[in-house]
Amino acid sequence: MAITVVGSVAFDTIETPAGRKERCLGGAATYFSLAASFFTSVRVIAVVGEDFGPEQEAVFKAHKIDTAGIERAAGKSFFWEGSYLENLNEAKTHATELNVFGSFQPRIPGSYRDSEYLFLANIDPVLQKRVREAMPGVKLVAGDTMNYWIKDHKPALLEVLKGLDILIINDTETKMLAGNNSLVQAARKVMSYGPRMLVTKHGEYGATAFFGPLLNGLNTKTFRAPALPLEEVIDPTGAGDSFAGGFFGYLASQPELTPAVLRRAMFYGSVMGSFAVEKFGTERIAQLTRAEIDERFGQFRELTHLD
Amino acid sequence: MAITVVGSVAFDTIETPAGRKERCLGGAATYFSLAASFFTSVRVIAVVGEDFGPEQEAVFKAHKIDTAGIERAAGKSFFWEGSYLENLNEAKTHATELNVFGSFQPRIPGSYRDSEYLFLANIDPVLQKRVREAMPGVKLVAGDTMNYWIKDHKPALLEVLKGLDILIINDTETKMLAGNNSLVQAARKVMSYGPRMLVTKHGEYGATAFFGPLLNGLNTKTFRAPALPLEEVIDPTGAGDSFAGGFFGYLASQPELTPAVLRRAMFYGSVMGSFAVEKFGTERIAQLTRAEIDERFGQFRELTHLD
Repeated sequence: MAITVVGSVAFDTIETPAGRKERCLGGAATYFSLAASFFTSVRVIAVVGEDFGPEQEAVFKAHKIDTAGIERAAGKSFFWEGSYLENLNEAKTHATELNVFGSFQPRIPGSYRDSEYLFLANIDPVLQKRVREAMPGVKLVAGDTMNYWIKDHKPALLEVLKGLDILIINDTETKMLAGNNSLVQAARKVMSYGPRMLVTKHGEYGATAFFGPLLNGLNTKTFRAPALPLEEVIDPTGAGDSFAGGFFGYLASQPELTPAVLRRAMFYGSVMGSFAVEKFGTERIAQLTRAEIDERFGQFRELTHLD
Repeated sequence: MAITVVGSVAFDTIETPAGRKERCLGGAATYFSLAASFFTSVRVIAVVGEDFGPEQEAVFKAHKIDTAGIERAAGKSFFWEGSYLENLNEAKTHATELNVFGSFQPRIPGSYRDSEYLFLANIDPVLQKRVREAMPGVKLVAGDTMNYWIKDHKPALLEVLKGLDILIINDTETKMLAGNNSLVQAARKVMSYGPRMLVTKHGEYGATAFFGPLLNGLNTKTFRAPALPLEEVIDPTGAGDSFAGGFFGYLASQPELTPAVLRRAMFYGSVMGSFAVEKFGTERIAQLTRAEIDERFGQFRELTHLD
C-alpha cells in the first residue's frame, strides 16, 4: 500500500572523520522515501528550489518514488551544513538555510489521496497537523519530531501527537517530551499524548518499540532491535530517517499488522539505518538491492537470536 | 564446575534518586559470587576487616558460596561511598577507603585448586596475574578491569590480558584500552592483546560479545544481548559484576562450550544485571530464586526474538 511522506528535501554539506562532502542530496523526506521505496510505493510532499535539478530528480525516479508533490519554488532549496568530528552520535550544526522551505505550504496532489499510510517527517508541527487533517482516510499515521519543536512549540506538537498512531523519535527526545529521565516511564507518558506505539531510537545501540493502547486491535510486548556493530561509520546523517523508512515501508508492504510484522519492521528499520551510515548522504541507500537488505536482515537475526 | 573468584568484598554507602543506604554489603567479588551461585558452586578469595561479621558471612553461606579464601585482617573492610544523583549510568565517588584491601595479598586455599573456572574481578592487575599464575590448571579464565588500571597501570594490565580467555568490560573501557573510538575496531585491538572473547557492556542498552581467535575450538559470531527496559533503576551499583556472575556462572554450569551456550550466557548475564539494579546493594540478587531467573530469561527472549 502506498505511503505519502511530507518533509524536507535538501542539500547537506557534511564533515565526518571520514571526510567532507559538499551539497549531498539530503533531507528527511529523501532518506525516508529511498529507504521505504524498497518495500512499497512512496509519494513525496516537499518543496525545493531551482538548485534541485534532473540529477536529484533522477535519484527519486530510479526508485519509482512519486514526485508529483515536490513543489518547485523560486530560490534555493533547504541547505544544512554540519559536522560530526568529535562525536559521531551528535551533529554540530554550522549552517541552516531554510530558503524556500521557510514558507513551505504543503499541497497534496489529488493522486496521493488514496494513500493508506502517512509519514509526517520532522517539520513544523503546524504543517504536520495540516497534512494529517487533509488526509482523513489514511489507515496508519507515523511521525517524527525533534528537540526544537519539543522545547519551543510543544502545544502545536501535542496537537499532532493526538492524531498519530506511531511516533518515531530518539531517547533524548522521548525523555524531553515526557520530562522524565526514565525511558520506560517517559515512553508511557508520551503514549498518553496519543501515539499507540512509540519507537525510541538509541543510535548505535538500536531501538525499542513500546506499545500502549491497542494498535489496530493488537496488544503486543516491548521489543528491542539492535543496531549492527559497524567497523566504520562514514556519515550518520539520515540514519534515523532511513530507519523510519525501512520500518514504515515494511509495515505498509504487509497485508496485516501482526505482532510478528511489527517486530520484523523494527529489524528492517535497523537494517536500513545500518546501510545509511556506510557512505556519505543517500549514496549507499540509493544503491541498495533488495537482496542486500534481506541478507543483512539475516545478520541481524544471527546477532540477536539464541538459536 | 566450580568457579574461583578473586576481588573485593566491601561496604558501600550509596545515594541514588531512589534514596540513600549506608554500608550495604558490596564489592565486585560479592556481586559476582551471588549472581554466579545460582548456576554453579563459587569460591571467593578476598580480604575483609573486623567489621565483616556473621550477618555478612550469612549472605554468602545462604548461597553455599565457599568463603575459606576470605581472609580476616585487623582493621576495617574496603569502603566506598558514591552517588548517582545526576546520572544513573555513572557513579560520582565521594570516598574510597581501601583499609585492609590496601595490602591485600591473595592466598588461595588448597581446597580451591581444582577449580576449573577462574574470574579475576577488578583489582590491581599485579594481583590478578599472581592469582592466574597460581592456578595453572583452570580451564577458562575471565576478568574485568577499570579505567584507573587502563590509564595508569597499562603494562601490568597487558600482562594479565595475555592470560585471559574472556574480558568483560564496558564500552568506554574498551575504547580507552584500544585507543580507538570505533567499538568494533577497539574490540579487535583488545582481543589482539590476548582475550579470545570480549564482552562489552553498554549499560541500559545491553552488551555485545565479540569473538576473536578460536575460543575452545569455536569460531562464533558477534552477539548482542539487550538489557531489560526497566520502570525504575533503584541502584546501579554492582550491575556489571552481576552480569559477569550470571554470564560466567552459566558457562561453568554447562558441560560444553558451544555457540548456543555462549549466547545463552550473555542472556543470563543481562538477566542478573537487570535484577541487581532493582534494589539497593546486593539485596535483590541475594533474594532471588532460580524460577525468577528463568522467567526473566523468557522475557529477554520475547524482547528480542522475531517469532
